[in-house]
Amino acid sequence: MDPISDAIRLEGARYALLRRLAPSMRHHLVVNLQPIGMIYEVLDKRLLAAEPQLAQIKDSAARMNGFARAAVQSCLDVMTWLTPEEGATSTVAEGVQECMGLLNGNFNFRGFSIANEAGACTLTVSRPGIRSVLTACMLACTDERSRPADLVLRADAGNGEVALTIALADNMSTDCFPNDGAYRDITWADVGAIAAAESIGVSHDEQLVRITFPGIIPTVPLTVD
Amino acid sequence: MDPISDAIRLEGARYALLRRLAPSMRHHLVVNLQPIGMIYEVLDKRLLAAEPQLAQIKDSAARMNGFARAAVQSCLDVMTWLTPEEGATSTVAEGVQECMGLLNGNFNFRGFSIANEAGACTLTVSRPGIRSVLTACMLACTDERSRPADLVLRADAGNGEVALTIALADNMSTDCFPNDGAYRDITWADVGAIAAAESIGVSHDEQLVRITFPGIIPTVPLTVD
Repeated sequence: MDPISDAIRLEGARYALLRRLAPSMRHHLVVNLQPIGMIYEVLDKRLLAAEPQLAQIKDSAARMNGFARAAVQSCLDVMTWLTPEEGATSTVAEGVQECMGLLNGNFNFRGFSIANEAGACTLTVSRPGIRSVLTACMLACTDERSRPADLVLRADAGNGEVALTIALADNMSTDCFPNDGAYRDITWADVGAIAAAESIGVSHDEQLVRITFPGIIPTVPLTVD
Repeated sequence: MDPISDAIRLEGARYALLRRLAPSMRHHLVVNLQPIGMIYEVLDKRLLAAEPQLAQIKDSAARMNGFARAAVQSCLDVMTWLTPEEGATSTVAEGVQECMGLLNGNFNFRGFSIANEAGACTLTVSRPGIRSVLTACMLACTDERSRPADLVLRADAGNGEVALTIALADNMSTDCFPNDGAYRDITWADVGAIAAAESIGVSHDEQLVRITFPGIIPTVPLTVD
């Protein structure tokens, strides 16, 4: 076997992470599209009325258009999980919310809960960095457990850097499903490859994952939106 | 450096391929959404008429809904490039058209042309297989060239298998842009890893790429649509 570079190990880790995030990405792609059909059915019925109420029809059409516009945004946003925008930043609070939003369904299904106690930390970090390292850590620390757990996220900012911690404690959840359908487990080797590429520090034991982000002094508006 | 398995090399190849296909995937996600806003503007103006023409308004609303439905389908379809559907099949002709549809814009931009002379080959092959191996081959054989070329795709079915060939000939295109913005070149090592995983044979020289698919005897309807 020829030698394989760290670059390919990194690509492998990023691929596995994408595969694990894919079901949530799919949901975000279509979530704004599904209401359009329902609003259309109502609008179409309203047109059949003896005296159609144009204000209501106007409102339904505007709502259809609003969901379509939101769908464009969510499609473009989902694609940035695949192709990160160079130099994009987000606050820690935004990053945590975004990652939880993407993984919550997956976690609930498996019997894990996530509590966000990271608060409104406004320190700016790399958006691709927090997205990839936090989701990889959340998957790695749950994939390696044989039983469900409760996760608590906390943030501790100081000295221009942020430490984000994930505390894990067994829970008694019985309403959980195994991870069998998943592409494969995310390993700490995957996390290490991604974290190194993003210049983010990660340490972990069975009860605590600690992610250390170097803060960014924003030279551009804080968010890309 | 610890040893890295063939599995990770394969994941690395699949990741690089996804990154190269991402701009086309993004386009397919939003292509059906963009007309909705234009139709809405027309519908909204029609509602302002002294005597609104309800039939036209009904038609506009139906078209908005039609594009939204098509967008759901294209979103779900794009996601299957990331998460292949196990056991999905397509005919060779469908697979070739789908891959050309995804890569045409990329190729034209770089000064390459693609002619599809594969015809209406109805032999059934693995859909994830033809998608990943054909796109990887098309990128690998063009990435390694220093000048633009014309590509001709042909199919030769027999003995229950299909050979798909890509013939390359230099062209005089000057209306071309370098590949600098691309994530990275797709290499023949990437192609080899993906082809092996899909049980597809690939051989190549500078003028010809030959892809050998084992045919599938369809036990289910020929297409997944």
